Amino acid sequence: MEFSASDLSATELYKLLTGAVVPRPIAWVSTRSETGGLNLAPFSFFNAVCADPPTLMVSVGSRDDGRPKDTALNARATGQFVINVTTEEVVEAMNATAVDAPPGEDEFRLVGLTPAPSSVVAPPRVAESPVSFECRLAQTLSIGPNTLLFGEVLHLHVRDDVYLPHHKIDALALRPVGRLSGPQYARVQEVFSIARPKWGD
Amino acid sequence: MEFSASDLSATELYKLLTGAVVPRPIAWVSTRSETGGLNLAPFSFFNAVCADPPTLMVSVGSRDDGRPKDTALNARATGQFVINVTTEEVVEAMNATAVDAPPGEDEFRLVGLTPAPSSVVAPPRVAESPVSFECRLAQTLSIGPNTLLFGEVLHLHVRDDVYLPHHKIDALALRPVGRLSGPQYARVQEVFSIARPKWGD
Repeated sequence: MEFSASDLSATELYKLLTGAVVPRPIAWVSTRSETGGLNLAPFSFFNAVCADPPTLMVSVGSRDDGRPKDTALNARATGQFVINVTTEEVVEAMNATAVDAPPGEDEFRLVGLTPAPSSVVAPPRVAESPVSFECRLAQTLSIGPNTLLFGEVLHLHVRDDVYLPHHKIDALALRPVGRLSGPQYARVQEVFSIARPKWGD
Repeated sequence: MEFSASDLSATELYKLLTGAVVPRPIAWVSTRSETGGLNLAPFSFFNAVCADPPTLMVSVGSRDDGRPKDTALNARATGQFVINVTTEEVVEAMNATAVDAPPGEDEFRLVGLTPAPSSVVAPPRVAESPVSFECRLAQTLSIGPNTLLFGEVLHLHVRDDVYLPHHKIDALALRPVGRLSGPQYARVQEVFSIARPKWGD
């Protein structure tokens, strides 16, 4: 089956992209407005893009009413955000923060999550998440209605039970959740390894 | 446990980022040089970033010897690339194309994969992959030694057995593979759904 992108609506393209670019990691992004209000929202157009400088990218869409989301507004206004990792133990709470709440609504309070003080940025991390990245906004990029936030990681929190020696993370202890399309998610239930080939072998 | 990024080496940061930003989708990128040579290589700093215009992002690192990878060279030179989706049925072949081969080496030939003609771009798609996105290079962005390629999707190929009506993809039929850290990968073995909350419910 073939499709020309120009024959498809934005909704149809969204369904094909989110159905085929899977599984996607989920950034649970906490921000603070200039007046101190907190916001927390999940995004799956998310990944690491560089290790040196350590940089994460999150693409933030518009609100259903067309206005910018608090995440993008706050990150631009303050230059700071925290990316918390989404795992099985927090997936229901993460999903609850995906609600299309009125601007300014505090999803920490709404869902009953704990804002833990960050070490070097103003927005709090989610205490219930086992890994958090404190970021400064290094740059933004607009693509269509989306705002891509590029965050330089300044400080990292890793809960002891998911940490392995030599800066490794235990994937099975972390129990990350991957985003699929529509209402669907996937667990990481089993891990397999393939050795990277060496040229000349 | 906490880490200041400035106390960590690039290798340590890479291990923490690739261990915690999981599971990552895997782009298997085919390109063609100006003289017609083919290249195929996998990248997991990859995601969709926008549906309208339909845009995929791949972050391409440098070669171990510091030179740019053929993927970035070819995409820049020709303005075109194809992103093929990585699934269980092709994961071993995908990994074989991760070899640090000399510049100009054709991984299709090396691994025994089939370059199928694309519909609107010059680089071929991987016939063995169930979903392919033909892209034009919309823009690039340099972050550290990495080159981020932003591809506008022009044309899509979806194999019938993974397609569901109304532009959906069947995740369990697709059997995508997620990238974890080191040599580790995860299958999508089971899917669960959570309804997105509505404000006011």
